[in-house]
Amino acid sequence: MASLTLACCQYAPDVERPELNPPRARDAIAHAVAAGANVVVLPELCTSGYVLASAEEALAGWAREAARGDAIVIGGFCELGEDGNLYNSSALVDRDGVQAVYRKLHLWGEEPRWFAPGEEHAPVVPTRHGPIGLGVCYDLEFPELTRGLALEGAELIVLPTNWPREPRPPASGPVLHSLAAITAYTSRVFVAVCDRNGTERGVEFEGGSVIADPNGWLLAGPIADRGARTLFAELDLDVAREKRTGPHNDAFADRRPDRYVAALREPAGEVARPLGA
Amino acid sequence: MASLTLACCQYAPDVERPELNPPRARDAIAHAVAAGANVVVLPELCTSGYVLASAEEALAGWAREAARGDAIVIGGFCELGEDGNLYNSSALVDRDGVQAVYRKLHLWGEEPRWFAPGEEHAPVVPTRHGPIGLGVCYDLEFPELTRGLALEGAELIVLPTNWPREPRPPASGPVLHSLAAITAYTSRVFVAVCDRNGTERGVEFEGGSVIADPNGWLLAGPIADRGARTLFAELDLDVAREKRTGPHNDAFADRRPDRYVAALREPAGEVARPLGA
Repeated sequence: MASLTLACCQYAPDVERPELNPPRARDAIAHAVAAGANVVVLPELCTSGYVLASAEEALAGWAREAARGDAIVIGGFCELGEDGNLYNSSALVDRDGVQAVYRKLHLWGEEPRWFAPGEEHAPVVPTRHGPIGLGVCYDLEFPELTRGLALEGAELIVLPTNWPREPRPPASGPVLHSLAAITAYTSRVFVAVCDRNGTERGVEFEGGSVIADPNGWLLAGPIADRGARTLFAELDLDVAREKRTGPHNDAFADRRPDRYVAALREPAGEVARPLGA
Repeated sequence: MASLTLACCQYAPDVERPELNPPRARDAIAHAVAAGANVVVLPELCTSGYVLASAEEALAGWAREAARGDAIVIGGFCELGEDGNLYNSSALVDRDGVQAVYRKLHLWGEEPRWFAPGEEHAPVVPTRHGPIGLGVCYDLEFPELTRGLALEGAELIVLPTNWPREPRPPASGPVLHSLAAITAYTSRVFVAVCDRNGTERGVEFEGGSVIADPNGWLLAGPIADRGARTLFAELDLDVAREKRTGPHNDAFADRRPDRYVAALREPAGEVARPLGA
C-alpha cells in the first residue's frame, strides 16, 4: 500500500457567524486537496452553529471537494439524529458521500446539555488507504477506546478536536500532545489530532494539532504560534500494521488479555452507569 | 490521610559483582529513610546476580532498614518460585517483612529465556499511606494493566524499572516520561518509576526515574545527568482518590465500559495466547 498524505486543517469555526462555517470547511478541504492531501481532517463541530438540519448539505459540500482529488475527508459536525437527539459526531466522507458516522461516546464539559452520548463503539472504516479509526477530542483520554480501535485493526486514528487551553507547568507541553504520542506509541498506530484554534465565548483553545507516528514521535505539529494553518505528513500505514517492536516483543501479542481486570470492560447490560448531568 | 514522602533510589546494580547488590540496596533505603521517606522504591531486579535462593535474605535486609523509619520499601528482585521457575518480581516490604509480591506479567526482550511470566494480575496493596499498585518496567506500556490497577483502587502505581536508552528525535524526551505522565493523567493517580542508570554488558540504561502526579505533571525527575541519585516527592494520595476533573467530568464515571470492544479483556480460558520466544 502506498503512503498517504494526511492534512489536518486547524482553524477557528465561528459560532457567531455560522453561515461562514460550511464555506470555510470547503475552502480548507480544497486547499489541502490541491496541495496533494489524500486524507483531510477538520476540527470537531466545524459546522458549529450552522442550521442543524442542514448538516447533510454541509457534508455534501465536503464530498464535492473530496471528489476533486479523490480524497477522504474526516471532520466533526453536529448531527441531528432520526431520534431527534443531537450528537457530537465525526463523519468520514469521500466522493460518493458519507461512508461512516461516529457519535462521540465520551461527552465533555457542558456537552450533555446539548448532545446525547453515542451508544456504539467508534468504527474502524476500511478505506483504500487502509483502516481508519474514528474518535472525537475527549475520547483520546480513554485508552480503552483508542486501544480498542487499534485492536480492531485501525492503523490511523483520527480525532477532530476542540481542546481548551489548560494551565500547565512552564516546562511542559500540552497534555494533548503527550496523549497523542503515547496513544500512537502503545498501539503502534498513527494518531492525527485536528484541533481548532482561537477563542470562542471566553474559551481559549489550544490550537494544538499534531500527527504522531507509531514510535510516539510527532511527524507534524504543533504549530508554533497556534494559528490557523494546515499540517501535512506522509504516512506509510504498513508501519502501523507491524506490531513487533524488536526481535522478542510485540505490542499486541505481549498483551495478557486473560489476566486483565473485569472492570476494564463490562458486557452491555452488566454495568450500572451513573446518569450524566 | 497525611501526605507521604516518596523516594525513588536510582542507581546501577552491578551484575558482575552481585555480592555488592544487597548492601547497595540497604544503603539506598537507609539514606532515603534517614531523609524522611515513608515509601522507598528501588530499581527492577536490584538483587540481580545475587545468589537467587537468597532473595529472602535480601528482602529481610530491606525489612530491617524499613523498620528504622517504619517505612515501606518496594523493589524489584529475582524470585525463585516454589514451582522452580524464576520470576521478575516486585516486593512490597515493611518492618514486618514481605507484604506482597507481584510477578511481572509482560516480559521484555530476552527475559523469557530466564523468567516465567506472572499469571496473576498486579495487586493493589493496602498500606497505611493508601492503596499502592505494583507493576514492573515494561508493564507501563500496557494501559490495560495500569488502568486496571487504578480501577481497583490504586492511588499510587510504583514501577521498579530497567529502561534501556532508546533512540529518539533530538527535541523529544524519553517516551518513558510521557508514558508515566499520561498513565498518571488518564487515571488521576500518582506514578513512580524507579529506573536504574549506567551500562551493563553493553546496554545503556536511561536513568530516567520520574514521579508523576494526577495532572500528568512531573513532581520529581528526570535527573539531568542520569546519574545515581534519589528523587523525593511529597504525595497527597487524597488527590488521587478524586476522579472528578471539573464540574462536569470524571475520569472514571465518564468511561463507557459496556461499549468497549471485547478484545480489550478476555476472561481466562477464552484466549489463545501466542507462545513466547
